[in-house]
Amino acid sequence: MERTPKDAGITRREFLKWSAVAGSGIAMGAAGVSAILGLSQAPGKVSEAAGAGQIPMYGEHQAGIVTPQQTYMYLASFQITAADRPAVIGLFRDWTRFSDLSTRGGTMQSGDNKLLPPSDTGETLDLPASRLTVTFGFGPAFFSQDGKDRFGLAAQAPRYLKDIPRMPRENLDKTLSGGDVCIQVCAEDQQVAFHAVRNFIRLSTGLASLKWLQEGFISGGTAGQTPRNLFGFKDGTANQLHQTPEGYQDVVWAGEGEPSWMAGGTYLAYRKIRMLLEVWDRTPLSDQEDTFGRNKTSGAAYGAKHEFDPVDLGQLPANAHVTLAKQSGKLIHRRAYSYTGGIDPRTGHMDAGLLFISYQRNPDEQFLPMLKLMQSQDKLNEYVSHVASAMFACPRGLREGEYLGQVLFEA
Amino acid sequence: MERTPKDAGITRREFLKWSAVAGSGIAMGAAGVSAILGLSQAPGKVSEAAGAGQIPMYGEHQAGIVTPQQTYMYLASFQITAADRPAVIGLFRDWTRFSDLSTRGGTMQSGDNKLLPPSDTGETLDLPASRLTVTFGFGPAFFSQDGKDRFGLAAQAPRYLKDIPRMPRENLDKTLSGGDVCIQVCAEDQQVAFHAVRNFIRLSTGLASLKWLQEGFISGGTAGQTPRNLFGFKDGTANQLHQTPEGYQDVVWAGEGEPSWMAGGTYLAYRKIRMLLEVWDRTPLSDQEDTFGRNKTSGAAYGAKHEFDPVDLGQLPANAHVTLAKQSGKLIHRRAYSYTGGIDPRTGHMDAGLLFISYQRNPDEQFLPMLKLMQSQDKLNEYVSHVASAMFACPRGLREGEYLGQVLFEA
Repeated sequence: MERTPKDAGITRREFLKWSAVAGSGIAMGAAGVSAILGLSQAPGKVSEAAGAGQIPMYGEHQAGIVTPQQTYMYLASFQITAADRPAVIGLFRDWTRFSDLSTRGGTMQSGDNKLLPPSDTGETLDLPASRLTVTFGFGPAFFSQDGKDRFGLAAQAPRYLKDIPRMPRENLDKTLSGGDVCIQVCAEDQQVAFHAVRNFIRLSTGLASLKWLQEGFISGGTAGQTPRNLFGFKDGTANQLHQTPEGYQDVVWAGEGEPSWMAGGTYLAYRKIRMLLEVWDRTPLSDQEDTFGRNKTSGAAYGAKHEFDPVDLGQLPANAHVTLAKQSGKLIHRRAYSYTGGIDPRTGHMDAGLLFISYQRNPDEQFLPMLKLMQSQDKLNEYVSHVASAMFACPRGLREGEYLGQVLFEA
Repeated sequence: MERTPKDAGITRREFLKWSAVAGSGIAMGAAGVSAILGLSQAPGKVSEAAGAGQIPMYGEHQAGIVTPQQTYMYLASFQITAADRPAVIGLFRDWTRFSDLSTRGGTMQSGDNKLLPPSDTGETLDLPASRLTVTFGFGPAFFSQDGKDRFGLAAQAPRYLKDIPRMPRENLDKTLSGGDVCIQVCAEDQQVAFHAVRNFIRLSTGLASLKWLQEGFISGGTAGQTPRNLFGFKDGTANQLHQTPEGYQDVVWAGEGEPSWMAGGTYLAYRKIRMLLEVWDRTPLSDQEDTFGRNKTSGAAYGAKHEFDPVDLGQLPANAHVTLAKQSGKLIHRRAYSYTGGIDPRTGHMDAGLLFISYQRNPDEQFLPMLKLMQSQDKLNEYVSHVASAMFACPRGLREGEYLGQVLFEA
């Protein structure tokens, strides 16, 4: 890297600071680059304006689960490469600190030594918190991989956590599926959401590698309206049925038979579903409506007048999306986003679809039977292709002062 | 496709309508699928709420050029496959109608025949206009390809239109570069922007093929603030220098020596610039600031106090971004967006960067010398890679009743 005259003069004070930080980094070994660079210890700053639109990070449950959906989402999946438990704990401490700071609209503050990289990447310096939420989850391999208890946590594995079993008609890309740890970042502002996910990635240097990263958006979900998916249909109407504390208790929050750290936690189920827009757009409206079992414009189920009217199975095509969802008799808490991503170079078609995410307390009883039924029978299968899959267990919410996973590591 | 009992009964009336439409489509031949399906003739509907946040489509200049930047952008490039001039004109008429409708927040209205695909894909049925703008441009090959005057327009080629010449250090992907026609769609709402670009693609079925599609976002560009790029720096400060009608006349609007249809038009220069975030994020703050020649936090150039203070070349590193921009002595109108797009599977690094777009009246005098200087000397080159490139000529604004390109075809 070239050096210009302006920064060639290193003051003694700067030199000592640099040496001291570098030295402590070397001594810390496994704690990685973030420690070497002092990122994890960087003080944070939250300006008053930046604090606007905050969603509290601490509480009984993690934010970003029953939080009303923000406009943007990034979902990142990591593979832990840290060799041992203390190194993982170090990473989780850093992630917790940054999560706390960024949900308050803050940025990590650099010291006055410009010979170090800035502690914060800086693209949100002028931006408010923007309803940022950060939601963490652990994949099956985090507890046990190839029969190996990697971090001494095998006995703490959540009751229902496993990779989603093979389903009919799926076409999964393994490089875009699974992972040890996921971080879901949502915000009303895409730059704010990206800033957070990028700095989580950065803080993981040497301790975890990014396995995949997906981004999505919704629109029209405000004021109680159900957002439309890229097929132009309202999808997720049934979410309204359980939006009470009791409903969430029934549908979302785990507890019974779980290790204590999962009480108040939940399971995140993820499917990346490519939607064949070109095919769909040439399909008669009657077929489109039969596929969902709803009127396209109003969102009302067949035989009903309004979107939220009760669904009458007698009025519906047997293989319609809403029929099967209803028939399964199960509720899930849906929190999906649309994605668009340029062109599939093999076909010239648009690469777009749905990042399906749902939260449920028991995937064996709720999500998996519904998925299996739909993958087998749903008329929608003519127009979609499931290309990625994952399941993560999300621990209960953090109390102030706790780090992510503390309740698990200290169980 | 399966048929459920509900729609098996085709009424005679429906059958006749279907036959009539199909028949007229067949008779029209080259006019393509959109005509067969009646899309181009579909009446539009604009509800009162949908009209909120409109930017007029008609005027002396096209919208989306000096329009204050919206939050989202899609840039689509097409290759015309239509065989002849009337077919191209038919496509442009359809595009114009849909552009008019969507900038007013409207959607194409389907008839009551559900055996036809809906005229509109429907995902914006509940959404307002959201400051949507549509900007069209023509690439060099639209006028002449391999020495062939494809549509009888070679004599009307704009004076400075050509592919951007090969530059030092670039690493272009030809499949993501160039094209016959570009459509830039911008809006405050990503779903509204995607809806428009998707329906432009749909209307082009059989007449043009989508060559590439890029999407980007900005944040923080409101209230006169310069948005920060993904390196965390304010970029585009110099735009403020010409934001007057006279300034735009000097910098943006073409005229002199141009065919008449380009008077009030402009040239769009596009570079997709991948930013090596992981490298940048480990670079000392002093190097980052030397690279731009600006203080990261305040945005002030070296030697200045505030972002908009005059730049003093004597205070700046010779190869800093702002030095070279200033030294070139040229102004351009910058309208760039950031992009993020998951992971580069070859490296595991984030695929993110800048969709650089600028508008200028004379690329030979303004954009190309600046680009050449920067590609040769800019310190920023250590951290970026130019991966795609294109230039398009954007005709003057439409008058009501005109179709896109009419002024060109009838010149």
